Amino acid sequence: MRLSDLFRPTRVVHAHCDLPCGVYDPAQARIEAESVKAIQGMFADASNRKPPNWSDTQSEDDWQARALKIKEERADLVKHHLWVLWTDYFKPELIEKAGTKPDDLHAMVWKATKLAGESKRSQDPAQGQKVLDAIAEIDSVFKASKA
Amino acid sequence: MRLSDLFRPTRVVHAHCDLPCGVYDPAQARIEAESVKAIQGMFADASNRKPPNWSDTQSEDDWQARALKIKEERADLVKHHLWVLWTDYFKPELIEKAGTKPDDLHAMVWKATKLAGESKRSQDPAQGQKVLDAIAEIDSVFKASKA
Amino acid sequence: MRLSDLFRPTRVVHAHCDLPCGVYDPAQARIEAESVKAIQGMFADASNRKPPNWSDTQSEDDWQARALKIKEERADLVKHHLWVLWTDYFKPELIEKAGTKPDDLHAMVWKATKLAGESKRSQDPAQGQKVLDAIAEIDSVFKASKA
Amino acid sequence: MRLSDLFRPTRVVHAHCDLPCGVYDPAQARIEAESVKAIQGMFADASNRKPPNWSDTQSEDDWQARALKIKEERADLVKHHLWVLWTDYFKPELIEKAGTKPDDLHAMVWKATKLAGESKRSQDPAQGQKVLDAIAEIDSVFKASKA
Amino acid sequence: MRLSDLFRPTRVVHAHCDLPCGVYDPAQARIEAESVKAIQGMFADASNRKPPNWSDTQSEDDWQARALKIKEERADLVKHHLWVLWTDYFKPELIEKAGTKPDDLHAMVWKATKLAGESKRSQDPAQGQKVLDAIAEIDSVFKASKA
Amino acid sequence: MRLSDLFRPTRVVHAHCDLPCGVYDPAQARIEAESVKAIQGMFADASNRKPPNWSDTQSEDDWQARALKIKEERADLVKHHLWVLWTDYFKPELIEKAGTKPDDLHAMVWKATKLAGESKRSQDPAQGQKVLDAIAEIDSVFKASKA
Repeated sequence: MRLSDLFRPTRVVHAHCDLPCGVYDPAQARIEAESVKAIQGMFADASNRKPPNWSDTQSEDDWQARALKIKEERADLVKHHLWVLWTDYFKPELIEKAGTKPDDLHAMVWKATKLAGESKRSQDPAQGQKVLDAIAEIDSVFKASKA
Repeated sequence: MRLSDLFRPTRVVHAHCDLPCGVYDPAQARIEAESVKAIQGMFADASNRKPPNWSDTQSEDDWQARALKIKEERADLVKHHLWVLWTDYFKPELIEKAGTKPDDLHAMVWKATKLAGESKRSQDPAQGQKVLDAIAEIDSVFKASKA
Repeated sequence: MRLSDLFRPTRVVHAHCDLPCGVYDPAQARIEAESVKAIQGMFADASNRKPPNWSDTQSEDDWQARALKIKEERADLVKHHLWVLWTDYFKPELIEKAGTKPDDLHAMVWKATKLAGESKRSQDPAQGQKVLDAIAEIDSVFKASKA
Repeated sequence: MRLSDLFRPTRVVHAHCDLPCGVYDPAQARIEAESVKAIQGMFADASNRKPPNWSDTQSEDDWQARALKIKEERADLVKHHLWVLWTDYFKPELIEKAGTKPDDLHAMVWKATKLAGESKRSQDPAQGQKVLDAIAEIDSVFKASKA
Repeated sequence: MRLSDLFRPTRVVHAHCDLPCGVYDPAQARIEAESVKAIQGMFADASNRKPPNWSDTQSEDDWQARALKIKEERADLVKHHLWVLWTDYFKPELIEKAGTKPDDLHAMVWKATKLAGESKRSQDPAQGQKVLDAIAEIDSVFKASKA
Repeated sequence: MRLSDLFRPTRVVHAHCDLPCGVYDPAQARIEAESVKAIQGMFADASNRKPPNWSDTQSEDDWQARALKIKEERADLVKHHLWVLWTDYFKPELIEKAGTKPDDLHAMVWKATKLAGESKRSQDPAQGQKVLDAIAEIDSVFKASKA
């Protein structure tokens, strides 16, 4: 057994490359969505911020401007990873294997990507949790397609 | 319990954003490294390729040119995710908590990123496995820093 | 009347920015798809290439490697522009106004983005024409939503 | 006649890829400039904003920070598309065919790209209209070169 | 002698491309760090700003939002150039030739990239000078490795 | 005197950020052009390649595919840096101070960026030297504008 086996998640992991290389993972979308929610949490409650790197010359406005920009970029990554999963990974036979209808998958992805766009405009972590829930819904179909 | 809790890996997940948002995850590097190894596997044995999307008008040379380009991009992402983890996540106190010395961590990251660069020039999945092993080594320090 | 009015296409043009800025245009996807088809045409018939910039030190293999890389990038842009239109522009009320069902729009976009991915692996301009046709189909819904 | 023919603008469309693929279109620059002007219009008059996606947890400062960032990115795209058109599409013989002198074209592009840079610093849609007018001027030379 | 020889710095210049092409230059990191410090200087003293392009419709808040975003991007480039130099250029034999130990180089790069991350959160040019000093330290090892 | 002063080139260095931050440097274009020429040199003579990282599983075709892709990206960066210098740095008063006419500067930049595009299609380092010479020409005007 290799060292890497000890650290492999219990589910198969994948990533996009459209060769196709056959490696995809909803974790990519989920990880970025967790960042988004974490940043929203920092807006909701300043004590959630990570102070060790707080410079004395940074104002509240400065912190907020940076936070919004970074949240925006993370939200765009959520959208990208979900779109790629939808177009490159999911095929009719895989959706069927998952016991889902294509129309339902399309609706799930449409909803999740719209929620990710909305997270750019929201400073509420409850909204970010909706994005994570939408990703989890897609993740369940993904898992079922691999079973 | 939310639907998203069912699909969360058993370890804490994180991602980079340098706000800092406090969300980091070696999985980001590992996922891309798995793509790299998968592509190397397709060079080593053509039967590893994913035929459903093979077009009749694509030659072997065409497939190889695309595969090399995509492998290059994925390898660059491995390097990026590791660099970010090294500079943005790891702090002296976290490395100490993990029971590791900074010099050892630096050496691990230097080795892993060099191996990722080498994977651009190698079509051998055994080389890609070395990249995964190097990432796993860093992952163990990461986990220990969170314990 | 301004000079810019003389050059405006007869349809409203838009582009993505997810502010939202309200500016979207299927032309962005179409333009890139025309590039893809043009490159495929150069593979199909070398006389379609643009010789004025042909360097004496460039081999046929060199030309092909560059062409594949550039075609790949353009195809990725086609996918991106379509995904953005789907998630950011189309809303239930706009789809209804266009006299289309959401499920049908989803299927159109899924098909078009899959065809764009396929164009990376095809050197046949007839395949590229399918991508353009799929974009045109989405464009008709877009126009109807604006009527 | 294909479906895509019904939706083709009355002028030849092109896009950059420097293969060269022969596909270029000033529409790419114009579309982004329209986004820039639209955003400036939202600064000038808040009623121009698109409320359906307005979250209750977004402040006026938040909206402005996002709008500035997005406007900046769109303005950079305007510059990029114009530079590409200038360097990759226009050749001495094409400029001559358009009945223009190279010096005049250079001056037009220099002016237009500077105006695009200025639009990052201006919240006035009248300034954005200047960018569109400058692009239209280049577009007229482009059209004449194709006649 | 060619015209280009008159303008070549007295040291060998290099840039990253991981082919490897053998061309690297700490100047890439330094140049971006100078931009960062310049922007910090504009926060510290508004008279350091470049007014010719100041639009009448830009508020102080607007200027600051743009400045922070641009400083962030430049700081990210500093980190990138340093990481690349560390992983792609420096090899054990080159470090030894420079009379330095690998552990010391690692520590220098770790410090410099952390300082670059900190410059995103600081509006104080004295902090930016620390980044430049850290880069200079690495540059001295680089020069010694080429001697 | 700080450590960084020992390593500053004898000319003022600058970089683009369009804030404007006032930091620009033709070195950015030159460095990338040196990479391009170095790669062309590796095509012209295989002994110019850097063997320490040559993997046993990389074929000649593989090396060439990577080299072309990397050369393409570097050439695009040359174009970008020159365009930015042209639009963002040079103003009528600076060109006049340099004792040059705007028309002449425009022609220089047009030529240099076209040569950079041509370097994508050429495997001859003599062609790459032309790009460097063109950049040097612009650099002389730049220096004169700062004198």
